[in-house]
Order: sequence, then C-alpha cells, then structure tokens
Amino acid sequence: AQSTRIAVTPGDGIGPEVVAEAVRCLECLRAKHGLDLEWTRFPWPSHAWHEEHGESMPADALSQLQKYDAILLGALGDPGPVDDPDRYLLPDSISLAPLLDMRKGFDQWVCERPARLLPGARQYLADERAKDIDMLVIRENSEGEYVGQGGRLRKGKPDEVATQMEVFTRKATDRIIRYGFEQARNRAADRVNEGRTRTFRTLDGRTCESQVCLITKRNALRYWGDMYTEAFEEISREYPDVATHHELVDAACMKFVQSPWAFDVVVASNLQGDILTDLAAVLSGGMGVAPSCNLNPTDADMPSMFEPTHGSAPDIAGQGLADPTAMLFTTARMLEWLGRKDPAIAAAGKELFDAVAADLAENAGARRGTHEIGSAVCQRLQA
Amino acid sequence: AQSTRIAVTPGDGIGPEVVAEAVRCLECLRAKHGLDLEWTRFPWPSHAWHEEHGESMPADALSQLQKYDAILLGALGDPGPVDDPDRYLLPDSISLAPLLDMRKGFDQWVCERPARLLPGARQYLADERAKDIDMLVIRENSEGEYVGQGGRLRKGKPDEVATQMEVFTRKATDRIIRYGFEQARNRAADRVNEGRTRTFRTLDGRTCESQVCLITKRNALRYWGDMYTEAFEEISREYPDVATHHELVDAACMKFVQSPWAFDVVVASNLQGDILTDLAAVLSGGMGVAPSCNLNPTDADMPSMFEPTHGSAPDIAGQGLADPTAMLFTTARMLEWLGRKDPAIAAAGKELFDAVAADLAENAGARRGTHEIGSAVCQRLQA
Ligand SMILES: CC(C)[C@H](C(=O)O)[C@@H](O)C(=O)O
Ligand SMILES: CC(C)[C@H](C(=O)O)[C@@H](O)C(=O)O
Repeated sequence: AQSTRIAVTPGDGIGPEVVAEAVRCLECLRAKHGLDLEWTRFPWPSHAWHEEHGESMPADALSQLQKYDAILLGALGDPGPVDDPDRYLLPDSISLAPLLDMRKGFDQWVCERPARLLPGARQYLADERAKDIDMLVIRENSEGEYVGQGGRLRKGKPDEVATQMEVFTRKATDRIIRYGFEQARNRAADRVNEGRTRTFRTLDGRTCESQVCLITKRNALRYWGDMYTEAFEEISREYPDVATHHELVDAACMKFVQSPWAFDVVVASNLQGDILTDLAAVLSGGMGVAPSCNLNPTDADMPSMFEPTHGSAPDIAGQGLADPTAMLFTTARMLEWLGRKDPAIAAAGKELFDAVAADLAENAGARRGTHEIGSAVCQRLQA
Repeated sequence: AQSTRIAVTPGDGIGPEVVAEAVRCLECLRAKHGLDLEWTRFPWPSHAWHEEHGESMPADALSQLQKYDAILLGALGDPGPVDDPDRYLLPDSISLAPLLDMRKGFDQWVCERPARLLPGARQYLADERAKDIDMLVIRENSEGEYVGQGGRLRKGKPDEVATQMEVFTRKATDRIIRYGFEQARNRAADRVNEGRTRTFRTLDGRTCESQVCLITKRNALRYWGDMYTEAFEEISREYPDVATHHELVDAACMKFVQSPWAFDVVVASNLQGDILTDLAAVLSGGMGVAPSCNLNPTDADMPSMFEPTHGSAPDIAGQGLADPTAMLFTTARMLEWLGRKDPAIAAAGKELFDAVAADLAENAGARRGTHEIGSAVCQRLQA
C-alpha cells in the first residue's frame, strides 16, 4: 500500500514559523511509531511566489496537490495587515484567494472548528462556567455567500451599484446539516467513552445527550433561511436522540458571549460560520490556540486541507513570537483524519493533541517563543 | 408652532410593559418642564392586529405614522420564540416585517447603537478595561443584505436553489460613512465638553482624538467590500482629525471580545451591523440596557423610529419581569433627537439618560421588576 502523503504549504507571514514546529512534531511521531507518513513542502501559495510569477500559485497547483492525502497549510496573506489600502501590495482578496480555490476545487464542503476552553488557555469571559465551553462549529464551506458572483455597475461613479449574490442549494444544505447531526452523535459517543456526561434540553423539555443548533438570519434573509429551516426540520427526524435548537446569527453571537457553554454542535452558513468561528476561537482562548480544517468527507480522491483559524499576522512575522499551538492542534486533527485509513496515524494524532494540551496546561500564561513551544511538545512526545 | 408628536407603538410581548414605563417617564418630564410634547398610542403593528385583520398593521399605517415626529416602538414578534417552526403561529419573517417596512418606508438609513459599559451594568468580560467600553456602532439601514431580493427555485425539491441578492449603492455607502465621521467628531467634541480625554492611534502612528473603523468582508465579498473601501478612503480625506481603521467582520467580532475598549465609531453594513450590534449590546451589559434608533437625518418629513435592541421576549412577557432600562435609554435618545428643534426637549432627554444611568449604578445586580425600575426612575425625575 502507498504511504500517507501530506502536502505542506507554509504560506506567508508566521505560516512558515508555525509549520516548522508542526513538521518537527510529525518527524518525532514518525520516528517514534514508524508511521508510514511522507510529506512534501511547497513554496506556494505565497506572496513570494506571486512576486516572482504574478500569481500566488502555479496554474496546475490543484492537480499537483490532488495527489496528496491532505494539505497542511500555515497561513496566507502578506505583506501587511489589511488596514491601509495604500500600503498592501496585494489586496487580501487576491493573496487569500488560494484558500478559497482549494476549498472549492477539492469540494471541501465542511469547515470544522472546535472551541473548547482547555486548561491553560486564556479565559476572556468573566463567568466561571466558561471552563465548560466545548462546542464544534460546523461551517458550510462550499457555497452560500462565498460563491463570488456579483459585480460593480458604474464602478467608481456616484451612482455605482455593487451586487453580491448568495446561492444556496438544498443538496449542500442537506449534507452539512446531516454532517452536523452525525458529529453530534459522535461527540456524545466520545463523551460516553471518556466517562464524561453532558445533558441538553430539547425544545419540548426533555433532556438529551447531544444537540445541534442551526444558525440562520431567516427573519431578514428569508429564502435560504426558510430552506435551511425546512431541511433541518426534516433531517432532525432521523436523529431523535439529538436535541435541536435554532438561533438567529445576531442572537447567536450574543449567546456565544453570554452562555457559550450551552452549545454543542453549531451548523452555520459559509459567512455566518466564518463570523461565529472567529468568535468561538476567542472563547477557546484566542487565535493562538484555534484549529481548523476544511474537509471533503465524501470523495476520497480529494485532499482535505488543515489550517489554523489564524492569519499570517505580518506584524509579528519573522520574530519567532507566533504561538504554534493552533497549528499543532490542527496537525493533530489532520492525523486523526488521515488515521481513518491507518489506526497508527490516528493514535499519533491523539497523542499529539494530548501533548499540546498538556503543554498548554502546564505553561498557562507563560511568554514563550514559537520554537520553545514546539520543542516542549516534541520533548513530551519523545518522553 | 405645532407640538412635537410621538407615535407610540408598544407592539408585542414585553413591548407594552416596557413602553408603559417609558410613557410614565415622558409624562413626568412633560409635567415637570411643561414640554410641548404629545403622543398617541397605536394598537399596531402587533400580533393581535394580525390575528384580527390578517396583517400586522393597516394598509395605510405608514401614512398615518408619517404625521408624527418620531415613532417609539416597544418590540415585535409574538407569540413564541423562533425555536420551533411548528410552534410559532406567525413566522418571524412576517411578524417582524413592520420593523423593516418602517425603516425602508421612512428611509431611516442610519441605525445607531451605542455601547458603553455603564456603572451597574453586567460585565461579561474578565478584563477590567471593559469598564472603558464606549463605542457607537453605526449600521447602514437602508439596503445591502436586506433588500429582500431573491427566491427559491424548485422549492422543497432535492435540487432546490435559493438565492439572496445583496445590493449596495455608492450613494448610501457615502452617506453612512460620512455620517460615521461626523459622529466621531461629535463624540470627540462631547468628550472635550465633559472634560474626558481619549486618544486613538492612526495607521501611520500619530495619536488622534477620534476614530472610525470600517467593517467589511472584502476578502470574500469583494464587490461591495471594494466599493466600501474606496468610499471610506475618499471620505476620510475630508476628516484628517479622525483616525481610520478597517476590520474584517470576523476579526471585528473577535476584537469586540478581546479589546472592545479600542473602538470608537464603527460603520458596518446592514447585516454585519446587525451582528456587531448584538455583540456590542452584550458588551454594554446585555439586551436589558441596549438602546437603538433608526434615523432619517436628511428628510425632516420622515419620522425616525426608536426601539430598544431587544426583542419581544415572549418567555417572560406579561410577568412584569422585563428590564425597561433599554427602552428608557432609547426614549432618552428620542428626546435628544426631537430636541434638535426644541432645546427643552433635548434637555429632558439628557435628564432622562442621567436618571436611568444613576438608577442603574445604584441598583447594580438587584432583581427588580419592570414597574419598580420605571417608578425609581420617575421618582428620580421628580426629585
Ligand atoms: C481568509 C478568508 C477568505 C477566510 C474566510 O473568510 O473563509 C478566513 O477568514 C477563514 O475563516 O478561513
Ligand atoms: C428583527 C430583525 C429583522 C432585526 C434586524 O435584523 O434588523 C433585529 O435583529 C434588529 O437588530 O433590529
């Protein structure tokens, strides 16, 4: 059988720094367990590649990447923060486009972003129950607000009109909602295995072991809001063991701050998921610890892509200051995912997660550099 | 000259309860200062009106309301929370439509939602600097994601496609951005008058007395994102005294939790503003204290509408439990607005604001009923 192969794309800014630590951990784990794992490093997508070739990645980038089982991506977007239109050489709509190209090209229709406030992570909320935050936000990753359709009529003129179309299909809606229910079940099973219990209330007052919250803005964006609601209602009947809930996106943001511990699985559209996952990342301690992945669970020929939620953070790039924790958690999730075919790899993913979590718990609040954190995790893996 | 006339529309759920306290305060202030102020109560828009007449308000509702100088609205949306599609008799897209009809019909193109963490309000964030939260979110209120254009192709079929169009005009973009800069200046002037100081950093490292942050999602929703960016850039040149900043909506949500005290004026699109204002409301202590207004600053013939950010909260309606504080702050803002033509009314608005703030500060965390809070504020006004 062929080895499991990873395309490593460090990208821009702090990307290469945090990816270097991820690769060290992969090396550790491969050596320790003799994992059948290989990786190749790509100089693109990146700002540097764009400077040289006029585009962020080669024309055949996707077909090159498709030969791999997974893509491990650092971060995109250089050279500057998006604050000042005069300063950035490449608008972020161009430098970040490869992210969206990969999601679309490989039909990575699920974006999974867990938010747990692990011991050692920074707690932004005053309420002690923040310790119980443990949710999984599942973002529809293939369509909706991100289809990129629209334009500018009379561009730059006083009577300009800009349009942006949102397109939602029932097919993509059904699959993401069903995926949400499946994950709710999986999480409940994991809790049972780990001897943890958690109960949720159903709408009719019963208690349940797991829950899915659907997000829409159906009181203003009716068309897809109604379609989402109907799909959710229908599919929920197949999962009588899972409680259901709906929140408008604005109310959900509020409740993410007021009572985030009440959420389990959250299913949201592409843009609303984008917004909610940044908020969820803060709840779990900030961008420094928030993992993310873009999955295609249905087509084994399509690589999934693993990138932390954070960006390229040009303000601290090159200084060895970036926290690689998010990248390491992301790498752990990648191994788990790849481990569907190879249990040794899955076990290594679990081992990496535990090592990173233990490192975080032990060094709460300590100021440590990128390499220092990576080394501490490697040592733990070697111990 | 004609009296200043207010259309009072209590609406549904807790609306009538909180509006009753607002009206008591208005009565107090009118008696105390002999204000030339009149109001008329309307039984619509409401769920009850819908039950009887098949629509939430009469066909000529807008032309009836147009005769007033302002609309003071409690809350809409009955009889139930939007959790369960089987339970609610009227979908919220219908029961809440009058809100959007008024905003549109009277071209209330500004939605202003201030967020200050006043003494006595609940602090959700752990960081002590939360006490310095003092921002004004300005939401574009006339177009964008809320134009209501779109549809459902093959409704209910497995190959259904739902679309929703976002439409942004340069005209509405310019006016909301310019309004933002004006408000930033006004706020800076108010701070000077009140002897407070606050400084912000410009992008090129200078310090400034005021700041406007533009929100977009221009890395994914390019068309209007670019138009917003260009308009912001151009208009900012007219305000060299005001610092500028741009945040992507997802990063903004994050920063609202991580460092909300760094924001001054925030300008956002209709939907992104909707989301950010719910978050800002929590930062200022929750829905119980968050005021809101929908303004038409350019057409004196069009009434502006004042409604708290909260909804009709059917779960606690009719029990005298709702906190009227948000409604009272909203009423204070209405008086200030109406006071542009009548300084005595403006002064009464300031007086009401101070009384509500003092009441809040003195009763931090106390469990008090709707009427009890209203009475305490009235007593303060009479003292
Ligand atoms: C960089 C940007 C296009 C991207 C998105 O909006 O999806 C990012 O915010 C994310 O969350 O992965
Ligand atoms: C009720 C709803 C249509 C409304 C909106 O989305 O504008 C509300 O959320 C608000 O913020 O005023």
